[in-house]
Amino acid sequence: MLEEMSFRTRKWVRPEDLNANDTLFGGSVLRWVDEEAAIFAILQLGNHRVVTKFMSSVEFVASARLGDLVELGLTATRFGRTSLTMRAEVRNIVTHEPIVTVDEIVFVNLGDDGRPAPHGFTEATHTRDRVPQHRPD
Amino acid sequence: MLEEMSFRTRKWVRPEDLNANDTLFGGSVLRWVDEEAAIFAILQLGNHRVVTKFMSSVEFVASARLGDLVELGLTATRFGRTSLTMRAEVRNIVTHEPIVTVDEIVFVNLGDDGRPAPHGFTEATHTRDRVPQHRPD
Amino acid sequence: MLEEMSFRTRKWVRPEDLNANDTLFGGSVLRWVDEEAAIFAILQLGNHRVVTKFMSSVEFVASARLGDLVELGLTATRFGRTSLTMRAEVRNIVTHEPIVTVDEIVFVNLGDDGRPAPHGFTEATHTRDRVPQHRPD
Amino acid sequence: MLEEMSFRTRKWVRPEDLNANDTLFGGSVLRWVDEEAAIFAILQLGNHRVVTKFMSSVEFVASARLGDLVELGLTATRFGRTSLTMRAEVRNIVTHEPIVTVDEIVFVNLGDDGRPAPHGFTEATHTRDRVPQHRPD
Amino acid sequence: MLEEMSFRTRKWVRPEDLNANDTLFGGSVLRWVDEEAAIFAILQLGNHRVVTKFMSSVEFVASARLGDLVELGLTATRFGRTSLTMRAEVRNIVTHEPIVTVDEIVFVNLGDDGRPAPHGFTEATHTRDRVPQHRPD
Amino acid sequence: MLEEMSFRTRKWVRPEDLNANDTLFGGSVLRWVDEEAAIFAILQLGNHRVVTKFMSSVEFVASARLGDLVELGLTATRFGRTSLTMRAEVRNIVTHEPIVTVDEIVFVNLGDDGRPAPHGFTEATHTRDRVPQHRPD
Repeated sequence: MLEEMSFRTRKWVRPEDLNANDTLFGGSVLRWVDEEAAIFAILQLGNHRVVTKFMSSVEFVASARLGDLVELGLTATRFGRTSLTMRAEVRNIVTHEPIVTVDEIVFVNLGDDGRPAPHGFTEATHTRDRVPQHRPD
Repeated sequence: MLEEMSFRTRKWVRPEDLNANDTLFGGSVLRWVDEEAAIFAILQLGNHRVVTKFMSSVEFVASARLGDLVELGLTATRFGRTSLTMRAEVRNIVTHEPIVTVDEIVFVNLGDDGRPAPHGFTEATHTRDRVPQHRPD
Repeated sequence: MLEEMSFRTRKWVRPEDLNANDTLFGGSVLRWVDEEAAIFAILQLGNHRVVTKFMSSVEFVASARLGDLVELGLTATRFGRTSLTMRAEVRNIVTHEPIVTVDEIVFVNLGDDGRPAPHGFTEATHTRDRVPQHRPD
Repeated sequence: MLEEMSFRTRKWVRPEDLNANDTLFGGSVLRWVDEEAAIFAILQLGNHRVVTKFMSSVEFVASARLGDLVELGLTATRFGRTSLTMRAEVRNIVTHEPIVTVDEIVFVNLGDDGRPAPHGFTEATHTRDRVPQHRPD
Repeated sequence: MLEEMSFRTRKWVRPEDLNANDTLFGGSVLRWVDEEAAIFAILQLGNHRVVTKFMSSVEFVASARLGDLVELGLTATRFGRTSLTMRAEVRNIVTHEPIVTVDEIVFVNLGDDGRPAPHGFTEATHTRDRVPQHRPD
Repeated sequence: MLEEMSFRTRKWVRPEDLNANDTLFGGSVLRWVDEEAAIFAILQLGNHRVVTKFMSSVEFVASARLGDLVELGLTATRFGRTSLTMRAEVRNIVTHEPIVTVDEIVFVNLGDDGRPAPHGFTEATHTRDRVPQHRPD
């Protein structure tokens, strides 16, 4: 059964996020999504050593303009042996109109040797019980 | 009665957020707080034309390091005639250890003429019923 | 018949492009790809009013580290009535090892009214004959 | 007796420093103040290992717009055993109109172990006689 | 007779200012110099509409590292009919060791039509008597 | 005999690259040139340890505006014993109008001890045969 998506990080569209049409630059959105997904994966897997492995196709449904407020939502959709798959949505805070949806973002859990390592989890946590054990040096 | 603080935006401490001791730069934290407070005020007052008027004293309780995950919480504490006062907290996502607390951040609601204008609200909304009516041009 | 990919823009991996593992942040790569694709589309369609509509799935094949040199390649793969589809590759300049490949990035050509408009081209230009006629105001 | 404030660093208000009203973003100003105060503290205490501990309340007296020129002034107001307190002002270079005043910014001097350490100074230097002895590694 | 150079803006060398040798990136230094020269020219000519026209050759005498403190000095060396020539120096605040010296930076004063216009000054001001009359719109 | 200049990296003029006249900021251009020259030097000398030593005088021939597309060209002009001299040009992609030309940019090849070291090359390579042997740590 699918978890409900939880919307967290909020962004204010700033001049440096716009393209030459004064609409939200696709590259900024993807950067936000990847950063938020990294944080989510670290908290779910209790490990800072995670890397983006795959991102499914992305449709830019609507755009946004200077000063618009957007929020990023994520939900875990599958726990593999060494991976975690998430679904992401970026939407306008006020209208709830979706801007971008990414069905699958796959992060891989790495061991000390920098190679994929089993994470031992099979479902999402909602408490703060998975404390990352590696501090990035 | 005080509203509970709701934690939303998450940040990953990046190289550009560090000072020369490799600890979190105070200026980055204050920038995050002000940006989050602006978003919160816009949504509560239904108006993009809001400006920071006052920030109470700030104690830097603990620090953070590269790769640490932090989250920003805000709650409305007082609705004035033309102002909104908020309380803000920045804390470590994993340990819940507070990093910075700001007891009062006051934003002022502006009219079309750029001067303080009554906003007409007396308490916080939890739904999305206050749609900003000005789009920043 | 497929055009050969032409590699142009070069990037030096900088501290702000790294994640907490000190490897290249996926979000930075996607931002670079989208920006390069926008430039390519503007030159092919002779119009600054272009927006990202779709990006096919992305596999992060290899990573890169601080100081590594990477280059971005693009080729046009399909001219639709109002769209242009491109293929993109990011690779290490020295080893030619691919870092990310995106099979399809679709940009849409917009008219003065901000809606999709026919661009009138059916194949790629290699000369500079398609001068954008709109200057972004 | 209070030292006169010396204005040094100058900033040109740029697009990335503006909020959605096209006025100077409070978070940018606080970031500038904290960075300038850190430089001042390092030079007064002869030590790179200094951290922001406290900032007194801040009133945003006036704003600034794109292209405005502002300057930052600082003066030492108190030398504690392990701390240095400063007063800061940000003002318009041309009109001398104050934008923000911060009465107290407290930095703490740290030892090699990262804990507060006595700095041994009781008043401000105006020569360059306090050479930092730690280079940040 | 040459004016003495006045050192104003201070910078703290941050991760984003370093090249792959962990020494100060030449491009960052030149950006700082150009920005400081622009501010100086605006204040001397009482006009925001000034542009960089020429920069004489630049020798990178010494470098700097993460956390080093540098300051930027400028002096007016020649008032042309529509131009202002300055000399710039970037040096280490602590050791006074020069990092970069630029003998001539020429800015041109522009009129409302965006073309070179006489500025009417023949020597530097040390008071704030030349208030810019154009606000950048 | 002079090599033909090869144009590679492309830039889209963004809000953060503009000065208060809404024309391209000289400091941004110089930063782009230095970064591109560093990449070129690393590839030609097969060494990441290279630093900018000298830049000849720069004339700002024309400007550019928000959304303009520019490209950077470089060619090697002289191989010294420990140095490499390049010529750089920044021009508008569409019109080929030059924006800035820099006749000489000199980079120095450094050894493990951080001092100038002979690089052993006397002419430019066009293949990828000079693999950097130092990875920046």
